[in-house]
Amino acid sequence: QILTAAEAHFEAGVLRGKRILVTSGPTHEPIDPVRYIANRSSGAQGTAIARALRSLGADVVFVTGPADVPPPDGVEVVRVETAAQMQAAVDAALPADAAVFAAAVADWRVASASGSKIKKKDGALPVLEFAENADILAGVSQRISGRPGLVVGFAAETDDVIAHATAKRARKGCDWIVANDVSPETGIMGGSENAVFLISDAGVESWPRMAKEAVAERLAARIAAALVS
Amino acid sequence: QILTAAEAHFEAGVLRGKRILVTSGPTHEPIDPVRYIANRSSGAQGTAIARALRSLGADVVFVTGPADVPPPDGVEVVRVETAAQMQAAVDAALPADAAVFAAAVADWRVASASGSKIKKKDGALPVLEFAENADILAGVSQRISGRPGLVVGFAAETDDVIAHATAKRARKGCDWIVANDVSPETGIMGGSENAVFLISDAGVESWPRMAKEAVAERLAARIAAALVS
Repeated sequence: QILTAAEAHFEAGVLRGKRILVTSGPTHEPIDPVRYIANRSSGAQGTAIARALRSLGADVVFVTGPADVPPPDGVEVVRVETAAQMQAAVDAALPADAAVFAAAVADWRVASASGSKIKKKDGALPVLEFAENADILAGVSQRISGRPGLVVGFAAETDDVIAHATAKRARKGCDWIVANDVSPETGIMGGSENAVFLISDAGVESWPRMAKEAVAERLAARIAAALVS
Repeated sequence: QILTAAEAHFEAGVLRGKRILVTSGPTHEPIDPVRYIANRSSGAQGTAIARALRSLGADVVFVTGPADVPPPDGVEVVRVETAAQMQAAVDAALPADAAVFAAAVADWRVASASGSKIKKKDGALPVLEFAENADILAGVSQRISGRPGLVVGFAAETDDVIAHATAKRARKGCDWIVANDVSPETGIMGGSENAVFLISDAGVESWPRMAKEAVAERLAARIAAALVS
């Protein structure tokens, strides 16, 4: 009976029958079997967005790197570690009605990753050679066929937030960019609040600082409005 | 009354009045404000050792990097992020009767760490320059004054475990080395079990694979025997 009530709730949701992909969390790029390059994304914002979309009735595919917070209930969870794995999971998850790329994907991987632990040898320093990872957001945004009707990217910046994010939106070809300032002094990366700009064809909206859950609910409502209008 | 009972328990412990330093967890070395180099240490083994020493009555100073598991109750916790911060915390925690260096400390930091997020520029790859971190284990082991009576190091290896760890013991000057194989296929890093070798003046002991808590209790008992003999 509880299940039936829950089902009825989702069936009533404005996003009922819509398939939405959400990526979340950091990626980890191996240096050797014990070391890796990470980033400070906790996955909190992406997780909150997936939960908010689900609560509006969407079928959510949640592709997540190794996050600090557990994935939401009621979504299809795909766990990945590296950017390359995330790209493969995104490709496998499409087509979708909308896609929200909230993950902090590594721009680079270590091309010279070692199969055994790199040892310290008197005075010698390691040399890491990098290779560029595929740009998942641009790849999906610029698809000729199978492009989601709405593609939302994120821009985590430490300076010139609006300028960098506006340029990123044009460069990637996504519809919206959610931009924020992740300088350490803001406490946003790893924290419970977020202060974002929503950048679209309509211009730049500045949202007040609020809980990440509130940002998620507001964004989910906007996505619903865009998909069902 | 519960407190009094607990106090009586610790007062009765064989390590009562002994001050023991335990380091644990990974260190994180920043690349820029959002990216860092990490390692797969969960902090589980170091945390279990601190707990086991505390349960034998020791006064434990627990210096921990950003671990996946919470620190044990009843110990003095010092939280750090980088190897340099860990070294400073270790120096501040000494003198001690014994020191157990279970942390997976980064051998290298990024000398060219950036104050703002490194941007992707058409085709250009980042160049990271490294600098060697101070060797905390060797520094404490080779102290002329203020050296703990017993210094225990760890060696996480992926090949030639005993040979590498025996050489490490000689090179660092510590009394014991607890060595293990952290190759991904062992499932030890991030897992609940450990299979270690204890290397000392007396030679190499191979301990069977067991829960990390059991390794910790066995090691704590050996430390107690060494300190009170």
